[in-house]
Amino acid sequence: MPRRYVAVCGASEATPSQLDAAREVGRLLARGGAIVVNGGYAGVSGAASEGAADEGGTVIGILSEQDREGANPYLTISLPTGLGQARNLVIVTAADSVIAIGAGWGTLSEIALARRLDRPVFALDTWEVKGLEVVNTPAEAVQRALEAN
Amino acid sequence: MPRRYVAVCGASEATPSQLDAAREVGRLLARGGAIVVNGGYAGVSGAASEGAADEGGTVIGILSEQDREGANPYLTISLPTGLGQARNLVIVTAADSVIAIGAGWGTLSEIALARRLDRPVFALDTWEVKGLEVVNTPAEAVQRALEAN
Amino acid sequence: MPRRYVAVCGASEATPSQLDAAREVGRLLARGGAIVVNGGYAGVSGAASEGAADEGGTVIGILSEQDREGANPYLTISLPTGLGQARNLVIVTAADSVIAIGAGWGTLSEIALARRLDRPVFALDTWEVKGLEVVNTPAEAVQRALEAN
Amino acid sequence: MPRRYVAVCGASEATPSQLDAAREVGRLLARGGAIVVNGGYAGVSGAASEGAADEGGTVIGILSEQDREGANPYLTISLPTGLGQARNLVIVTAADSVIAIGAGWGTLSEIALARRLDRPVFALDTWEVKGLEVVNTPAEAVQRALEAN
Repeated sequence: MPRRYVAVCGASEATPSQLDAAREVGRLLARGGAIVVNGGYAGVSGAASEGAADEGGTVIGILSEQDREGANPYLTISLPTGLGQARNLVIVTAADSVIAIGAGWGTLSEIALARRLDRPVFALDTWEVKGLEVVNTPAEAVQRALEAN
Repeated sequence: MPRRYVAVCGASEATPSQLDAAREVGRLLARGGAIVVNGGYAGVSGAASEGAADEGGTVIGILSEQDREGANPYLTISLPTGLGQARNLVIVTAADSVIAIGAGWGTLSEIALARRLDRPVFALDTWEVKGLEVVNTPAEAVQRALEAN
Repeated sequence: MPRRYVAVCGASEATPSQLDAAREVGRLLARGGAIVVNGGYAGVSGAASEGAADEGGTVIGILSEQDREGANPYLTISLPTGLGQARNLVIVTAADSVIAIGAGWGTLSEIALARRLDRPVFALDTWEVKGLEVVNTPAEAVQRALEAN
Repeated sequence: MPRRYVAVCGASEATPSQLDAAREVGRLLARGGAIVVNGGYAGVSGAASEGAADEGGTVIGILSEQDREGANPYLTISLPTGLGQARNLVIVTAADSVIAIGAGWGTLSEIALARRLDRPVFALDTWEVKGLEVVNTPAEAVQRALEAN
């Protein structure tokens, strides 16, 4: 069975509880055998990467800049794109499903682009917009992201 | 004084009142001397283009496809990009301010990307998310979009 | 009849004779009723823009940065994209045909992307690669670019 | 020491000897501990991926389409981008150095974009343009790509 790609989207500035949630999401995705895709820097991406790395998971960071400067140290693979915010589209296009955590404009753009491309989005303490699957815990987010078609 | 670039963002499927609003926004932007930027196809983009063209305005359509097929007939300039949904970023990056009309995922992505880049977004019968300037009429949207820094 | 879009591609650093050629190409394209598309900064883009503006033509500059800083003053329309070098693809996708002048890596990328998309490329003192239409004068470049399908 | 990212660029249509070279390049890169980045479909990308997979290496395919259809079966990680030919920029931006094999327009665009971003390009039976490091064997290409700064 092919491995699932799950994007974890969230801002570089996040609350402690959002960072905890992201770390736990990363851990559970790795245990579930998923490949984690994110923006590759600090904040929610950093915490999700750390959690996944703790469990020996695979983490892909899609960077907005032309080089690897500022990438978090937990990435298995880091991919500079030089595309600026257009890299947000790459993150969600590469994913089978998306878990969104916290409130940043970049995160909202990823939510919207994911839905535009019919990827399911699981919303954990993030923007309240219709059309998302609201979840209450990292475990619920991960379980549903792994099962989604 | 340099001319202002104002993006008019909205879905290809829209209600009659949204299309009327888009047409009026296009007319008023053209009268105000602004250059209208949009996605170049039908729906809100088509109506805004028609309104602007009625008043002899300049309308730039940033197309997602590699050719001009499906572009609305009111564009002064049509620019195929072949970038898919990444062209949404181009629309708002090219604009000094953004008027959003109606509810589509592409529109929400444009709202979010515009705010991510600090472009002011004037919201006319569209997604209700914090951080937007809610306006009630096409005239108010255009006046504020033309004055925004 | 729809107006033709012709991209003029060349580096920001160019020889005096390349700049003269670009200026003349811009003039002749404007006289021929074409819309000139280019990268929007100085060098070959600046000279082609100046020539076209001299004749009252329309010039579209597709900028790599997120703002208009550094854009040449002859553009009718300037479009910041924030896409970095990915904007090279937009320049040639937006064009019906391409005139390449001078030798820069960005120029070569535009030549290659244009050919990848089946746009004819007219080569005037530029990279010598097979598959281009080599021309000897600005007049020949423009005549053939305007006639190309 | 961080692992090296090496892009292997080449067309989906290639000669048997180019495919053999790509396969050998993939094998040697994997043995050298490099991460192979390519376009993810058949031809040179497919052969390089197969070679790397034979040796247990890591292969990242950056796909132009929005889904994984047509991706070669040897990829460790496949990333749909939906960016069309703009994904060529992502392939070379993500790489520390580039090995180019064979003659396609997409390949030439990758060569040019890589050089535009100052990535060294090692040329193995490919476009003859100045500014590339011409190599004669897969072993020489790989050795130099692994050593390049």
